[in-house]
Amino acid sequence: MPVRPRVVVIGSGFGGLAAVGVLAGTGVDVVVVDRDNYHGFWPLLYQVATAGLGPDDIAAPIRAIHAGKPNVEVRMGLVCGIDPPARQVELTGGERLAYDYLIVAAGSSSADFGIPGVHRHAYTLKTLPDAVRLRNHVLSMFERAENNAVDGHPGAADLTTVVVGGGSTGVEMAGALSELISHNLAGEYRHLDVGRARVVLVEMTDTLLPGYSRRSQDAAVATLRQKGVEMRFATSLASVEPDGVTLKGGERIQAATVVWTAGVKANPLVGCLPGAKEKGGRTPVADDLSVPGHPEVFVIGDAAATRDRRGELLPQVAQVAIQGGRHAARQILRRQEGRPARAFRYRDHGTMATIGRRAAVAELPGGVTFAGTFGWLAWLAVHLVFLVGFRNRAVVLLNWAWNYLTWDRASRVILPEGTGPETTGPPAAHPG
Amino acid sequence: MPVRPRVVVIGSGFGGLAAVGVLAGTGVDVVVVDRDNYHGFWPLLYQVATAGLGPDDIAAPIRAIHAGKPNVEVRMGLVCGIDPPARQVELTGGERLAYDYLIVAAGSSSADFGIPGVHRHAYTLKTLPDAVRLRNHVLSMFERAENNAVDGHPGAADLTTVVVGGGSTGVEMAGALSELISHNLAGEYRHLDVGRARVVLVEMTDTLLPGYSRRSQDAAVATLRQKGVEMRFATSLASVEPDGVTLKGGERIQAATVVWTAGVKANPLVGCLPGAKEKGGRTPVADDLSVPGHPEVFVIGDAAATRDRRGELLPQVAQVAIQGGRHAARQILRRQEGRPARAFRYRDHGTMATIGRRAAVAELPGGVTFAGTFGWLAWLAVHLVFLVGFRNRAVVLLNWAWNYLTWDRASRVILPEGTGPETTGPPAAHPG
Repeated sequence: MPVRPRVVVIGSGFGGLAAVGVLAGTGVDVVVVDRDNYHGFWPLLYQVATAGLGPDDIAAPIRAIHAGKPNVEVRMGLVCGIDPPARQVELTGGERLAYDYLIVAAGSSSADFGIPGVHRHAYTLKTLPDAVRLRNHVLSMFERAENNAVDGHPGAADLTTVVVGGGSTGVEMAGALSELISHNLAGEYRHLDVGRARVVLVEMTDTLLPGYSRRSQDAAVATLRQKGVEMRFATSLASVEPDGVTLKGGERIQAATVVWTAGVKANPLVGCLPGAKEKGGRTPVADDLSVPGHPEVFVIGDAAATRDRRGELLPQVAQVAIQGGRHAARQILRRQEGRPARAFRYRDHGTMATIGRRAAVAELPGGVTFAGTFGWLAWLAVHLVFLVGFRNRAVVLLNWAWNYLTWDRASRVILPEGTGPETTGPPAAHPG
Repeated sequence: MPVRPRVVVIGSGFGGLAAVGVLAGTGVDVVVVDRDNYHGFWPLLYQVATAGLGPDDIAAPIRAIHAGKPNVEVRMGLVCGIDPPARQVELTGGERLAYDYLIVAAGSSSADFGIPGVHRHAYTLKTLPDAVRLRNHVLSMFERAENNAVDGHPGAADLTTVVVGGGSTGVEMAGALSELISHNLAGEYRHLDVGRARVVLVEMTDTLLPGYSRRSQDAAVATLRQKGVEMRFATSLASVEPDGVTLKGGERIQAATVVWTAGVKANPLVGCLPGAKEKGGRTPVADDLSVPGHPEVFVIGDAAATRDRRGELLPQVAQVAIQGGRHAARQILRRQEGRPARAFRYRDHGTMATIGRRAAVAELPGGVTFAGTFGWLAWLAVHLVFLVGFRNRAVVLLNWAWNYLTWDRASRVILPEGTGPETTGPPAAHPG
């Protein structure tokens, strides 16, 4: 029996899952490594942050996803290094995993562009812990403001959220947050004037949703304005302070909550790979998505500087990662069969963003756009189809239907502190 | 217009909610104080700990529960003292809330009976943070064992859980944990021999479910044995160590996880009230549930030493708290109408405990008992009816139906660390 080549896949996001889907049941052995034990459905992360869904609803256990694939092994661990000459990846703790082929699908994290205070005082929205922390914080600020209002302190800053960045995450977050406040929290406080709550969106360009058509952008601006979201265009942050932000023009906005969605950078792991890094730390790849000089290493998704036919960097979205993951996996199988590599060609299936209840923009290739209710239904259908795992899909659908019929957001619980996998000791102190 | 008396209710568990339900829409003003912003449906807490449900599924926001009640105000805060002569409760932070009537529905927490190591090394199962911590820990231990197994370390202790206490929480936890292991985790690890995982239940008496009929007890023992749960009767813990437990007889069980369900004590807040405390710190109450010498203060549920007609202490279960909360609220309304107080009479509607998939014991008053599938269906129906909030009920039902049909437990995610309401600053460090 010939020795089966071993493919290590770093990351279980959209790209990593897509790659494993192609490699399952083939003549290679696959080892999937992820720092978490779950795949996160990040397009709905803002729903967790705004109490529409629970964290479990958008997370599917990686082992369960791959349970029926005999040639796929799952390892929970944090990759801290890649050694291309030795063909090994290194895990924290010192273990080294040898590979014949490597697919780096490690994604991206928040980048603060060196703006003072972002790292320290702003909330990001890239991971499940991020979403839970942000939800806990926003709800706790309303509770604090209510307690202060009893003593006659208005505490308007506690009720103000600044969302930085007018891309899809910023738009979705601002829209959902304003609905949470006006439709749910508004009726529930005795002393607080929830009408004073503000959601301020700051965007560097002169409109929302860069990359969308003007029509969609205008629809997004109009919808958010109607929801009461204040918008500051053509400006950016000078700094973030513990109690607000200062804009470049000098305007100061007092706010207890600052959500940073304005920048991402490639996973620093690609620093182990050769090649001068491009914008956002993305690593250069050949047209088959392999690393120049290392045809056995592929980088896909957010961490790769993948380009379209015109030479433009592809956006850091799920579809690019999914198609890239499939492509890299197929090239490995072709290599095994002695066939030449093929160039990656990205197919644009369209993009969509939701701005709240029955309002979304969707753009198909060829200039077809939807907005409003129809866009929202399209967004709903596409996201439900892609949501991994039937149970999550059914639960999410039920939650949405319920939210929609009742304006309810039943996940408004300030969630407990759970110890992460690193700190597995018992609780520091028991209650009572 | 006469001045409306103010009733402060400490706690939003079953008892506190029941009291507010009676007082809503009447001629008193109600202020509800709770340390959390949610009501927890504790009978299903073991389901969160064993990955059958998400934490949001068993938590309903207190403000949402009381949103339609104009005379009910909600305050999130931790009560740290009661001053009966001044008729005030004190919150951490120094605020004092004046009351005309007070209902203490503050529940209980875990008691370790002074056994060395319990407080430090064992996991409790009384709160939502407890359940999330326990789930994270058990799942992380399996991940750790898998990583160690690659290097040839068997790591059987990582796969061993000792559950201390054979009451309903211990029985439910042991049954659900053994199902999680044998039906879900067993097929998902490559290097690990999950068949070596052990669940050991330690119970001081000679059987499970004290207070149930012999027939139910025997059914519980037989069901757990069939599920592979090892049981140690008529013994208790000498100590808990970081890597296991030592029983009084000297037996040592190596285990990475120890779950302590063997003891509870009344919320220490009742220490502010007069009267010598009884077993488990429960405070004495008059037959109308008021505090002797303070007819305006009522204590109900786990923290009260309420007795039945034969003088026996009532069990610390939801039904006693619910009926007590309603009774105390009704006495306040009677007092307002100038009518005499009535004595509390507990009505036993029966008890039930589930031992896993399609196995439960249910006991109705008068000696009627069910076991097996019929007991399980009864348990399911009763718990769904009592679960607060329609959405939670629907989600839980869907999750259960899915679990039942597929043996799936989709909440097997090691949940993020969220900051609690006390620590509302941004994350200590951003990823990347």
